[in-house]
Amino acid sequence: MNLDALRREVLEANMELARKGLALYTFGNASGISRKDNLVVIKPSGVAYEDLRAEDLVVTDMQGRVIEGALRPSSDLPTHLVLYRSFPSIGGVVHTHSPFATAWAQAKREIPCFGTTHADYFYGPIPVTELMRPEEIDFEYESQTGHVIVRRFSGLNPERTPACLVASHGPFCWGPSPGEAAHTAVIVEELARIAYLTSTLNPQAAAISPFLLKKHYTRKHGPNAYYGQTREGN
Amino acid sequence: MNLDALRREVLEANMELARKGLALYTFGNASGISRKDNLVVIKPSGVAYEDLRAEDLVVTDMQGRVIEGALRPSSDLPTHLVLYRSFPSIGGVVHTHSPFATAWAQAKREIPCFGTTHADYFYGPIPVTELMRPEEIDFEYESQTGHVIVRRFSGLNPERTPACLVASHGPFCWGPSPGEAAHTAVIVEELARIAYLTSTLNPQAAAISPFLLKKHYTRKHGPNAYYGQTREGN
Amino acid sequence: MNLDALRREVLEANMELARKGLALYTFGNASGISRKDNLVVIKPSGVAYEDLRAEDLVVTDMQGRVIEGALRPSSDLPTHLVLYRSFPSIGGVVHTHSPFATAWAQAKREIPCFGTTHADYFYGPIPVTELMRPEEIDFEYESQTGHVIVRRFSGLNPERTPACLVASHGPFCWGPSPGEAAHTAVIVEELARIAYLTSTLNPQAAAISPFLLKKHYTRKHGPNAYYGQTREGN
Amino acid sequence: MNLDALRREVLEANMELARKGLALYTFGNASGISRKDNLVVIKPSGVAYEDLRAEDLVVTDMQGRVIEGALRPSSDLPTHLVLYRSFPSIGGVVHTHSPFATAWAQAKREIPCFGTTHADYFYGPIPVTELMRPEEIDFEYESQTGHVIVRRFSGLNPERTPACLVASHGPFCWGPSPGEAAHTAVIVEELARIAYLTSTLNPQAAAISPFLLKKHYTRKHGPNAYYGQTREGN
Repeated sequence: MNLDALRREVLEANMELARKGLALYTFGNASGISRKDNLVVIKPSGVAYEDLRAEDLVVTDMQGRVIEGALRPSSDLPTHLVLYRSFPSIGGVVHTHSPFATAWAQAKREIPCFGTTHADYFYGPIPVTELMRPEEIDFEYESQTGHVIVRRFSGLNPERTPACLVASHGPFCWGPSPGEAAHTAVIVEELARIAYLTSTLNPQAAAISPFLLKKHYTRKHGPNAYYGQTREGN
Repeated sequence: MNLDALRREVLEANMELARKGLALYTFGNASGISRKDNLVVIKPSGVAYEDLRAEDLVVTDMQGRVIEGALRPSSDLPTHLVLYRSFPSIGGVVHTHSPFATAWAQAKREIPCFGTTHADYFYGPIPVTELMRPEEIDFEYESQTGHVIVRRFSGLNPERTPACLVASHGPFCWGPSPGEAAHTAVIVEELARIAYLTSTLNPQAAAISPFLLKKHYTRKHGPNAYYGQTREGN
Repeated sequence: MNLDALRREVLEANMELARKGLALYTFGNASGISRKDNLVVIKPSGVAYEDLRAEDLVVTDMQGRVIEGALRPSSDLPTHLVLYRSFPSIGGVVHTHSPFATAWAQAKREIPCFGTTHADYFYGPIPVTELMRPEEIDFEYESQTGHVIVRRFSGLNPERTPACLVASHGPFCWGPSPGEAAHTAVIVEELARIAYLTSTLNPQAAAISPFLLKKHYTRKHGPNAYYGQTREGN
Repeated sequence: MNLDALRREVLEANMELARKGLALYTFGNASGISRKDNLVVIKPSGVAYEDLRAEDLVVTDMQGRVIEGALRPSSDLPTHLVLYRSFPSIGGVVHTHSPFATAWAQAKREIPCFGTTHADYFYGPIPVTELMRPEEIDFEYESQTGHVIVRRFSGLNPERTPACLVASHGPFCWGPSPGEAAHTAVIVEELARIAYLTSTLNPQAAAISPFLLKKHYTRKHGPNAYYGQTREGN
């Protein structure tokens, strides 16, 4: 994929956040990576979605140096870069402050897999990180935010669990492409909403059985998937 | 009704779910049956509502074999087929993951009939199934989902209780036609929402009295109904 | 006011319920009265708001006999008639199943006056009726619904408390005109929503002080009101 | 800034409240001050947002005497004036009855700083005033509402905490300009919403660490800010 196509896809991913009501004012950001060129395209910092144009997007290298673009990149860029380096299979990252997902992050609770809606997208709960330590906050905070996610994913597969709640902060989501990362961010907010309703309706609500979890996840994902339409190469 | 008219009605039922905000992305599906021809028209699997056209709908026989259409049918087709076979009076089935109804299903609680809004549509609570057993999940899962609903309806009249919550999953709704099944799905979400608010406001809230339940249900349904406008044959 | 003007105002009151999201499908109804002619104009039963035209409205006398109109009046007409007879100063009645107000009615709790938003419109809580008795449900149910409201208003001033929750049912609202009754119905839903949030956030939340209640109510209502713009005859 | 430009900015601030769904009917009001001329521009009392035009806005002096305009100013004008006199650095004031913020005010709870979304805008919790005393309610109530806010801000910096909840009432917000005050009002409602969800999900939820609070606040505000785009003079 050339850089212009990636720009368009990153713009579209950012606009999807705004269209689905996940992004108030300048909240949130989406990026994409060209693995071939080791370049990242990301939303500029503090720009409102309705004003965003493809030429406003910022292109940086893997050290975060601006290669193209007149604006500053999102201040969360270092978090995105850590995720791209640590999870080699991902092609897009999205961060939002969407209200229900942020509430779970603020409540410092992982989102349990309460039902099949969740199991269709995540092979288990959506995890929450530990709290960041003062020294992580003081030095290279945004990179450390990435590292606290990566540390939480020790033993977890980022393809089967394509999002993480950063405690006291909010969700970071990813996927094979910027568009799929944005799609996941929308799904995470919906799962967070339904789980909120479930948990306040029945504080003893239990997670889905492992059988049902596996059934729903694998009917949509992996070699035996039979949900959706067949695609070339899938 | 010929098949083209049924296609249009099934398309319209699917679009009603999207219009009323019950269907995020590809969530949910609506179908209709031609009892004369023993043919079912259903949404294709994994297609977004905004892209859906009448020609994308899939026509199958009662064994789920595709008779017309280039796309795969919804993966929930076997559930619809079990409902059509078991409840001979119904003409449409709708499945959604609408958030409030799904929360009750995930909380594994039936929706109590807390008031007249509910009693206008359901002659009692909206039931919830038992959890599916591992062997039901492993073998012909989607058909078994239908069977767990049918088993729950032992002793219940599916015309007076036109929906069921599948535990850990979400609502399945039905009606004399696809349009009426979609209407019921919208109503179920609204009843689930009001019941959620009622139950969180007053955890001891009691169900409506049997007198008031009967009064409201029968003023809208059955031979002595006096709600709405008179229709031929009604 | 002639009957055509009243028709237009009743249509507009009904449409306001739909515009503000208070009326799903055919839920709810608004009416107005010509005190000079002893005629009531009301929404027809079971007609969706998007299809409603001025000529569909039904004109009845004070006994509920249809004077003009090809459709059946709302089945709640007898409730409206009792309110018009018992509260001589009112000119419009609105009934809805709006979700937050209905939840308080189903929880069988009056809506406390928790703050100034409420006190701007109601001089105290929004009361809830007692449960209707089986014999009231069995015989002339809709008229009895009016009587249970009127009984609850013994000692209350319907001008200072322009709405009542019918237990297990929902809100009935009124005002000097159909438009003001619809305005009140929208306000009642908003007050019910804020009170719900207040009560779930702080189950011990106390009602506003009597001083603040009086201050806010009387700055908007009565001879010493100073909120809003001066109007002739006000 | 001349008065015409201020009028346009105050109109725009009022319209932003309506656009973002914070203002039902005539609820709420926004004003701006010309420090050079000691004149305030404010919404007229009881006028709906959809009818509001620049020429309807009312210009008053610092004693609240109308200098320009045919309509009465908002009845909350004296509160605005007290805030302008007490907080010399502010240029705009906004008052709303937005539902989540009003619920915290009615629950008489400050909004804790549960996460970084909040810390991006407020350097600590959003405070709530004490209840007003009967004599404050009886005499110059609207000015006293300002004084109870100012008293609560003893020891607090109104630039770093640009809003206050008045107990039993609702939020008052401010900023360097009317537009920024309106922006803050929208943010306060979103923070109140996420904090509501957090608190109902986890009643023991704790505030953010002081390290993280300082980090997020100072990355957006003050001399070392690095969020957003550089602006002249910033």
